[in-house]
Amino acid sequence: MDNESKINDLIELLLVSSRERLHEIIEDIHPQDILDAINKFEGDKKLILSKLPEEVVANIIDEADDEEKYELLALFPEASQKLILSEMSSDELVDLLETVTPDRATNILEKLQKEDMEEVKELLNYGPDTAGGIMATEFLAVKENMTVGETLKYLQVESPDAETAYYLFVLDEDEYLKGVVSLRDIVISNFNIKIHEIMHEKVISVPVNMDQEEVGHLFEKYGFLIMPVVDEMDKMIGIVTVDDIMEVLRNENTEDIYRLAGIQEGERVEGSIGGSVRRRLPWLYINLITAIVASLTVSMFEGTIQRVVTLASFMPIVAGMGGNTGTQTLTIIVRAIALGELTFENVKKVLLKEIATGIIMGFSVGIVIAIIGFLWVGKPVFGLVIGLAMLLNMAVATLAGFLVPITLKKLKIDPALASAVFVTTVTDVLGFFFFLGLATVLLEYLV
Amino acid sequence: MDNESKINDLIELLLVSSRERLHEIIEDIHPQDILDAINKFEGDKKLILSKLPEEVVANIIDEADDEEKYELLALFPEASQKLILSEMSSDELVDLLETVTPDRATNILEKLQKEDMEEVKELLNYGPDTAGGIMATEFLAVKENMTVGETLKYLQVESPDAETAYYLFVLDEDEYLKGVVSLRDIVISNFNIKIHEIMHEKVISVPVNMDQEEVGHLFEKYGFLIMPVVDEMDKMIGIVTVDDIMEVLRNENTEDIYRLAGIQEGERVEGSIGGSVRRRLPWLYINLITAIVASLTVSMFEGTIQRVVTLASFMPIVAGMGGNTGTQTLTIIVRAIALGELTFENVKKVLLKEIATGIIMGFSVGIVIAIIGFLWVGKPVFGLVIGLAMLLNMAVATLAGFLVPITLKKLKIDPALASAVFVTTVTDVLGFFFFLGLATVLLEYLV
Repeated sequence: MDNESKINDLIELLLVSSRERLHEIIEDIHPQDILDAINKFEGDKKLILSKLPEEVVANIIDEADDEEKYELLALFPEASQKLILSEMSSDELVDLLETVTPDRATNILEKLQKEDMEEVKELLNYGPDTAGGIMATEFLAVKENMTVGETLKYLQVESPDAETAYYLFVLDEDEYLKGVVSLRDIVISNFNIKIHEIMHEKVISVPVNMDQEEVGHLFEKYGFLIMPVVDEMDKMIGIVTVDDIMEVLRNENTEDIYRLAGIQEGERVEGSIGGSVRRRLPWLYINLITAIVASLTVSMFEGTIQRVVTLASFMPIVAGMGGNTGTQTLTIIVRAIALGELTFENVKKVLLKEIATGIIMGFSVGIVIAIIGFLWVGKPVFGLVIGLAMLLNMAVATLAGFLVPITLKKLKIDPALASAVFVTTVTDVLGFFFFLGLATVLLEYLV
Repeated sequence: MDNESKINDLIELLLVSSRERLHEIIEDIHPQDILDAINKFEGDKKLILSKLPEEVVANIIDEADDEEKYELLALFPEASQKLILSEMSSDELVDLLETVTPDRATNILEKLQKEDMEEVKELLNYGPDTAGGIMATEFLAVKENMTVGETLKYLQVESPDAETAYYLFVLDEDEYLKGVVSLRDIVISNFNIKIHEIMHEKVISVPVNMDQEEVGHLFEKYGFLIMPVVDEMDKMIGIVTVDDIMEVLRNENTEDIYRLAGIQEGERVEGSIGGSVRRRLPWLYINLITAIVASLTVSMFEGTIQRVVTLASFMPIVAGMGGNTGTQTLTIIVRAIALGELTFENVKKVLLKEIATGIIMGFSVGIVIAIIGFLWVGKPVFGLVIGLAMLLNMAVATLAGFLVPITLKKLKIDPALASAVFVTTVTDVLGFFFFLGLATVLLEYLV
């Protein structure tokens, strides 16, 4: 509610202020807030947008969701579009271009200044999920024999964006990265000090083709705000900033969570019904096939079920417990892979731990369910059958929860993808097989 | 592999360098890398640690996992411990104190300088999951009528940590937040300019008791590097930095993923078997109870199953498809709640969308399974029963996937917690009830 009245106040302010007054006050308002106000405003958005300086519009477009970016830009006449585009940084332009149709992309590219166009075209060559795909080419480069005083003068001329200004990269003549110096180091040093005296030499950089999620892990590990990106020849070609990385990590997390539940990426809670059906139905059909495999397993034992129909009543317990046990292990393993916590060194140890955990939990649950089965049916052998089936099923479930994601990872398939479907298929099929198979073998003691 | 040889080189360097030489080179090595080297080194860790300057050790302890922090500190003699503790910032000290036993916490508190001790004691009063619990009290404060030149002198005297130096907060005499100025604004401005001429006045701050996840969303939304924290009277009392926020978001994401799978928070992939069993078994027992409820539902229809035993074979399809459909919706809703995308305004629209999606998917899957059922059993009514049950079950599954997390949220329970257990119970019980109930009603056409 507080946030809503804040947005309403801002809409009011944007509408009533003169163009001149607005340019004065706009600097203190975050572009995300202006975007929220524009999105909420139900009248003609041009009324607000046309008053804003191009630089602010560029920032607003950068904050906008993928689909909105072009819509916002298209509200402006051609001349203004050119000015707005010239204010956008290279990574923002790439983001914009990657979300529009090829026709629109060509149209936008034509409106760019020649230098920007070439830079952006180069960036578009990198995979969108790599360091190259999210980097910006605007960064501050200095030479190691410049003094602090010279550097300060250079900064005053360049007047860099706030988000990229906190680290200056020290390059040699061939653009190799020699070191890094923070703005804070510059500020607290004497004017005559040379850059190489205060620079840090061991700079951790990322190769241009590194997967963006891996880059994200480096930011998390080291707590960096900016990381330099280098090409195959180790020349520095760009920077990745932490605000972009937060978005990357957020999207990767959503993707993992969705995939574990069998939802295709890109589904949004406010999306269309058609979009939801299209993204979920394929997995349900795959699941239907695996469920039919489980059904076929059961149908092999129809003769046994006919004679001991209570077996059918216990089937949900077998399937449910196996599925849940498998999903627990699966989730631990998928998350550990995503966070880079599962390595060659500890994978065996983790496997043994999971199997031991499965056996202990299988015993713990098996004994309880054996007693329940005995009391329910009145025959000790029924307790033995359901208890033993549960122990076997849960041990296998942890094994499947471990092996399925590891195997997918080895096959270079995202482990989160469809893992749950495979694991529950294994636990359903084997669970029913253990339970109904044991019952068939011991049938004479059950009837 | 590359990373491993890097660590081995670093161990070598740490071991062979003289104390003096080490102090020179250590500045360029990230404390996280030194920590990795210490953890990997199999000899006496004191051999390395005792050579390092206290400031570096403080940084290493800050990077360490919760359990390791105290272990590292305890390797030093008492006098060194005091020096190390004096180098740690307030939020790092709080992190350390929150992870040790009360005895050890008292012991650490006694070793702090009086001023630090009071500050830390105050910070410990805030909930560990709030802005207050993760903030640091060290920040740069300036007055609005200071000049840029005076500010630069102040910075040279203070020589602040790199991570907190990028924003200076403008406070009045009563410590109310008047504005913020970035280090970049300082650097590119003339020495005689007054701070109030270049400061941004509309500062977005967080209240000290705001939940850390909500603070995280603000960082994501605005792309901030630092946010000021204010108390109930709006006085500025600390800062939260983006590196801490990344850790918060990472942990909250893991927690959500784990809870959806029925795993208690705190499980680690490399943890002990006992820890894993303790964190997973409670959920399996809860799931056992809900599975028994599903079994009781089936047992109501044992007479029907005895006459049409193929019904038992189709039970895994009913349960599996309902559970998966419910989990899909559940996941979308839980994630939307976690990301703050589900609001009062769109909740009705989302509900209608989910129901419509469930009905469309129910029809799509229902028709296929009806045909399969008809072909399998050879009776059209069997196809009707399984198809209709599937439609009803999937429509109810999306409804349950929506209502269960929304209800938990209203009850102020984390929606991710146990949602899956409740949803699959609903889909199992109702799915079997629809399927076997319909079969019982139409039994004369099935035998």
